[in-house]
Amino acid sequence: MTQPVVCTTVDQMREALDARVAEGATSVGLFPTMGALHDGHLRIAQTAREENQLVVVSVFVNPLQFGPNEDFDSYPRQLDQDVAGLADCGVDLVFAPSTEEMYPGGVPVVSVTSGQAGSVLEGATRPGHFDGALTVVNKLFTIAQPGPGVEFRAYFGEKDAQQLLLMQRMVRDFNHRVEIRPVPIVRSETGLALSSRNQYLTTDDAAHALVLNRTLHSLAAGELTLEQARAAINREPGVKLDYLVTVDPDTLAEVEPRAGTLALTAAWVGPTRLIDNLKI
Amino acid sequence: MTQPVVCTTVDQMREALDARVAEGATSVGLFPTMGALHDGHLRIAQTAREENQLVVVSVFVNPLQFGPNEDFDSYPRQLDQDVAGLADCGVDLVFAPSTEEMYPGGVPVVSVTSGQAGSVLEGATRPGHFDGALTVVNKLFTIAQPGPGVEFRAYFGEKDAQQLLLMQRMVRDFNHRVEIRPVPIVRSETGLALSSRNQYLTTDDAAHALVLNRTLHSLAAGELTLEQARAAINREPGVKLDYLVTVDPDTLAEVEPRAGTLALTAAWVGPTRLIDNLKI
Repeated sequence: MTQPVVCTTVDQMREALDARVAEGATSVGLFPTMGALHDGHLRIAQTAREENQLVVVSVFVNPLQFGPNEDFDSYPRQLDQDVAGLADCGVDLVFAPSTEEMYPGGVPVVSVTSGQAGSVLEGATRPGHFDGALTVVNKLFTIAQPGPGVEFRAYFGEKDAQQLLLMQRMVRDFNHRVEIRPVPIVRSETGLALSSRNQYLTTDDAAHALVLNRTLHSLAAGELTLEQARAAINREPGVKLDYLVTVDPDTLAEVEPRAGTLALTAAWVGPTRLIDNLKI
Repeated sequence: MTQPVVCTTVDQMREALDARVAEGATSVGLFPTMGALHDGHLRIAQTAREENQLVVVSVFVNPLQFGPNEDFDSYPRQLDQDVAGLADCGVDLVFAPSTEEMYPGGVPVVSVTSGQAGSVLEGATRPGHFDGALTVVNKLFTIAQPGPGVEFRAYFGEKDAQQLLLMQRMVRDFNHRVEIRPVPIVRSETGLALSSRNQYLTTDDAAHALVLNRTLHSLAAGELTLEQARAAINREPGVKLDYLVTVDPDTLAEVEPRAGTLALTAAWVGPTRLIDNLKI
């Protein structure tokens, strides 16, 4: 297994990418991450590997997408371990820039905004989160753009459903030459959606957190109404529901649960906020 | 003189551009306009022609950068005449998309914002103007991006000083692979900065409008203080000053007039709002 080339500056990244394209790579897959990679991430990296000649994974804990009271400082950082996992997946390039490299001079003057669509659901609890995520991914799309004649694909997990929708909108609204490839949620054997934040869960928390996926399935099966499902989550010890809604998967507008809709939930499990979703 | 190829869709534009790059063009110059081209524009197109193997001029009256009470509907549209002028300059491609082509489905969900820097000076009088201009130029940079190994330059007139600064910031903040090339203001023989909106001026208005450039020169020469210069503009019949300030040309922060600063002014001349600026 060859080691990925780790680039820490935009110029290094472009030079490495341009060289591979000049050597004849006809497809590039980009997978943007914040590191702390788990099996869910590695599944996405493998998918990118299967579908592209050149695979780039970015590892950058993006301060813009954390709120002032969120876990930016304590967010797990483990680049060596991440690179080892990505080597096992056959990833070619890892882009791991510093904050100063991505935001020279601090908070950008010009940035990306998702307006109203980014202020509901996750955005209601996390003001500015989606604008921050879009701002950094917009930069990554430009940095890793291989140019005309080369297929360019970007990979996002379906776990962050609202993020996925907004990325798809950004590609359309900004004319980015990239195809968004959604990858299904990876779950533990017990059914918990994999998340870097699962590291924060105690054994008890992890057991209680299963109520999310269990309840989404009961809702999807028609065994519970939305109200009953919300109550079921709130009854679980140590779990406090933020939201449970069913939405139109194209617009994220709230609709009644029915086939073709997407059930989205977010809850605090102990001190940790988790999200999950399930197609109905 | 060969006629420019006029592309009305993003796909046509990219196909034409990619073909020229595949044929060996090693530099591309993009000049974004709203049409109604005057000699100032043509001077910029000529500069782009001298510096690049392939020259693209976009002609698009961008609704996003007009306020609800501004002149979007009445803004002059004269594509045939514009194309003829661009043919004389040797422009290769004209990109003239419809509003629907640029904003399918209406106002974009995801857009570009310049925050505070876009809400002062021109932005104070024209809320949303710079966000609209940045949003469309961001799209044009992506649409006309020739890819690695090809020099890509974008041309902006110095008349819109705040716009120029924000475009430079966007390139830096978004990692666009483009070099911004500022082009000096072109003036009539009488000294009036050329503008598409000069078409709205009566002969009397046009004479009164000369107070702007004359006063900027008096200020630069130290013959008038800022306060005296503001009064001089307001004394001119039919002219109402919006602002006259001197700023740091890098940050647009207001500073006292001194060598190296930039004097910016905006005024209503009859019903028409004009801007001008001069390096001190």
